[in-house]
Amino acid sequence: MEGKTKIVDRFDDYVILNFKDDITAGDGEKHNVLSGKGEICAEITAITMKYLNSRGIYTQFLDFERPNKIKAVSLEMFPLEVVVRLKKAGSFIRRYGGEEGEEFKEPLVEFFIKDDEKHDPMVCKNHLVLFGICSEKQVDEMIDAAKKTASELKKFFGNLGFDLWDMKFEYGVDKDGKICLGDEISPDTLRLRKTAEIFDKDVYRKDLGDPLEKYREVLEACRSLNLL
Amino acid sequence: MEGKTKIVDRFDDYVILNFKDDITAGDGEKHNVLSGKGEICAEITAITMKYLNSRGIYTQFLDFERPNKIKAVSLEMFPLEVVVRLKKAGSFIRRYGGEEGEEFKEPLVEFFIKDDEKHDPMVCKNHLVLFGICSEKQVDEMIDAAKKTASELKKFFGNLGFDLWDMKFEYGVDKDGKICLGDEISPDTLRLRKTAEIFDKDVYRKDLGDPLEKYREVLEACRSLNLL
Repeated sequence: MEGKTKIVDRFDDYVILNFKDDITAGDGEKHNVLSGKGEICAEITAITMKYLNSRGIYTQFLDFERPNKIKAVSLEMFPLEVVVRLKKAGSFIRRYGGEEGEEFKEPLVEFFIKDDEKHDPMVCKNHLVLFGICSEKQVDEMIDAAKKTASELKKFFGNLGFDLWDMKFEYGVDKDGKICLGDEISPDTLRLRKTAEIFDKDVYRKDLGDPLEKYREVLEACRSLNLL
Repeated sequence: MEGKTKIVDRFDDYVILNFKDDITAGDGEKHNVLSGKGEICAEITAITMKYLNSRGIYTQFLDFERPNKIKAVSLEMFPLEVVVRLKKAGSFIRRYGGEEGEEFKEPLVEFFIKDDEKHDPMVCKNHLVLFGICSEKQVDEMIDAAKKTASELKKFFGNLGFDLWDMKFEYGVDKDGKICLGDEISPDTLRLRKTAEIFDKDVYRKDLGDPLEKYREVLEACRSLNLL
């Protein structure tokens, strides 16, 4: 199965996620190929997910296969983006206003249906249940897991000198019906800042230079922890 | 205080809602004055709210003052539109797709912040609480009240030969902190159909003829109940 930034090869007991060099924005309207991006994002995902596993958070990560593959738990993915916001940015401000970087009193969890044509519309818990996308219990479990994961990642990146503003998670269900964090954790799916300096896909979205230069800085910081 | 379709005069113990002849659509971008509309919508609101009061649902309605005024309970309004959907239409389809008139398995309640500039963005329960618009308890009370009211109005209009597709409510808090249904109940705020025939603001939104011709038919049907 091939997505915008990954190819998933399914085997009997696991899957292999092949990270591509593609980068996209604006529901796929902007698209480029940046040589080396796949390996960078695969390795950052491997390091962060391995760290999360060690903190008792269930992720899809099993093993990193250099340069750009991850061996992972086989999941039935929900067609959802689960966003946790710690500071205001991006589509939140377009929808509700406010200032970039303004801190929320507490983390805000939002759900979006993955549908480029419909521009990933936001949904609430009652939509998810009514549409048959997941049960109420599964929504509550995802909200709980997403908040815990956000808190761990904030600490993880804080220790490396980065301020984590928001992040996008994708969840699935394993063969035992357990909810598991899948997909990717990288500057493609996180907003990482050092005061005014941007280390995430906003470099690409806003044409602020070579995104990979910044992505590599994030990778180097992650590597310094020697987790792999 | 003057809104797009009403002037609210505040007195010590009550308010007077003056229904204007203005009709608007598309966040106020489309705007006309239809002579007689104010009286029609005021009287339909009076009849339906009086009916709801008799069914144990707390509405703002106290008295109808011909031709276009309603004496009403003084409320601190939430800056919200509370939409109950029984069949798919309008912004639901634009957001999520589906066919006009497709029935939901159960009523869907949606919240939108009243903000023309931001195009009335949808919010979930956690937004409402985080933004300080209302407490979690108040959201739950509104959802509960909105569902009950939708069920009563579906029966009310069903008995008059109309199929109620969806409706927009506005709630406020009275001096004792009780949540109360305010504003208006009319073809401006309901989608009312007889098979393919449209008896609501979609006549105006979609330029399908003289809206008031249809609004008057709804009023005549409501009058037949002799409730005022």
